[in-house]
Amino acid sequence: MKLLSYLDGDKEDWGVVLGDGVASLRQRSGCATLAEFVGSPAWATRDTLVAGLQAERPLAGLHYLPVIPRPEKIVCAVRNYMDHHQEVLAAGMQRELSDFPPIFLRVWRSQTAHEAPIVRPRVSESLDWEGELAVIIGRGGRDIPEAQAWDHVAGYSVYNDGSVREWQFHAKQIASGKNFESTGGFGPWMVTADEIAPGRQLKLETRLNGETIQSSHTGHMIFPIPRLIAYASTIFTLVPGDVLITGTPAGVGWSRKPQRFMKHGDVCEVEIEAIGTLRNPIVDQA
Amino acid sequence: MKLLSYLDGDKEDWGVVLGDGVASLRQRSGCATLAEFVGSPAWATRDTLVAGLQAERPLAGLHYLPVIPRPEKIVCAVRNYMDHHQEVLAAGMQRELSDFPPIFLRVWRSQTAHEAPIVRPRVSESLDWEGELAVIIGRGGRDIPEAQAWDHVAGYSVYNDGSVREWQFHAKQIASGKNFESTGGFGPWMVTADEIAPGRQLKLETRLNGETIQSSHTGHMIFPIPRLIAYASTIFTLVPGDVLITGTPAGVGWSRKPQRFMKHGDVCEVEIEAIGTLRNPIVDQA
Repeated sequence: MKLLSYLDGDKEDWGVVLGDGVASLRQRSGCATLAEFVGSPAWATRDTLVAGLQAERPLAGLHYLPVIPRPEKIVCAVRNYMDHHQEVLAAGMQRELSDFPPIFLRVWRSQTAHEAPIVRPRVSESLDWEGELAVIIGRGGRDIPEAQAWDHVAGYSVYNDGSVREWQFHAKQIASGKNFESTGGFGPWMVTADEIAPGRQLKLETRLNGETIQSSHTGHMIFPIPRLIAYASTIFTLVPGDVLITGTPAGVGWSRKPQRFMKHGDVCEVEIEAIGTLRNPIVDQA
Repeated sequence: MKLLSYLDGDKEDWGVVLGDGVASLRQRSGCATLAEFVGSPAWATRDTLVAGLQAERPLAGLHYLPVIPRPEKIVCAVRNYMDHHQEVLAAGMQRELSDFPPIFLRVWRSQTAHEAPIVRPRVSESLDWEGELAVIIGRGGRDIPEAQAWDHVAGYSVYNDGSVREWQFHAKQIASGKNFESTGGFGPWMVTADEIAPGRQLKLETRLNGETIQSSHTGHMIFPIPRLIAYASTIFTLVPGDVLITGTPAGVGWSRKPQRFMKHGDVCEVEIEAIGTLRNPIVDQA
């Protein structure tokens, strides 16, 4: 089942994909948001909820919102793909593999929807792509053991962890370059976890104007999803609708020779097997 | 004027300190939260709003909440005091002064109130204090010039940027050690900006069980408040109730010889001139 958030006029709505259209589940479920739904008792009855529904509006022309528009937390893994780690070393940066998952945080205001612009800030010439698998937390919890971590996953989506490289490297802390407004593409929808076996290796491809710039698979992850969930939930309680983005594989613009970045007029797509394709035009900050 | 958030039974309330008591402003202002109030039209009429009010309940025994219980963003400066920078160098850590303010993010779930426990997580033996000046954003904005930054400050409070040192140093990204649940003390109230001249040098003192362990002043800041506001608002829109914590001076436990940390039964206080004293008992995670 594919679930997504979108605008109905100027009002936030969310629902289910049915063929080439969507049907709202907001009133039917009694949940105002998708984040609320994935943590609610109604979640368990979602198959019944959508049985017999017909699409109410077409996907074409839909005003998408980020799948979870305002996650309480967006926990991001950095340096979590072995092929990316190797490319960074090859580019001459000094890095060691850590014994622990390196994480940073994004704020929800840095997100942007499927088909909405990723915005290159005026202060940067180095807006870079990072195609990533996003994990949406369903059941919350603290101190979740790795062995139970899959039970807390509601589903998966596609993220473009857009990065403003000069600002990312202003200091050792990369938060500034990772939080520019409208740089984190998130969509088009989440696929519920029942459709993707735990740990299944998924092909991930990023394309810039149709040209493939990242081509890898989630089997290259250094710290797998259960480890990330266990680690994050040792720090704080995970709640329904929290998002984990799991790191990017090789092929980012910063590590290329010559370096290459996204500019006004470009279109960046991230496609993950069994989930879908997130598409964002790039525009300059007004 | 001192404004604060607290519990009325199990309901969130907020109001003004009047002598040794408080009066609620929630209904009188039409604002459900203090964060909403600092960004509302009612903010400009706050003197009229409280004129003639009498305290409705005593401060003694009040169930405080973090001054802003759920800021959209908590932007934290790291290495922002020259005396702390020098102590870190003296402790043998390699660090250079950055040309840009190094920042990281805390999530609101890491906060704890005045008189509420700071919780030492089971996984750590190195829970450390960091007394800091907190700035509460009133009027929001993006790309705020330094020259206009003071106009966006609603007031000031006291923060204890409690830090789990082993986790902070798991990787270069310090977010994990800076976000444990109930480690960030925030209170007891905010003092409105009209009472503290822009850039005024404020004495800051941290005490552990009555013993002074940090004694400095805000004049040691490397990147002053207007620079932090300008820098952060280049990244994203600041909104009413966002919190900037501005870094800690010398004297943290990690840099001491021998190192010293907070443990169950300790009481940590942070006092800032013209604002007040934030007090937190330390308890072990259950």
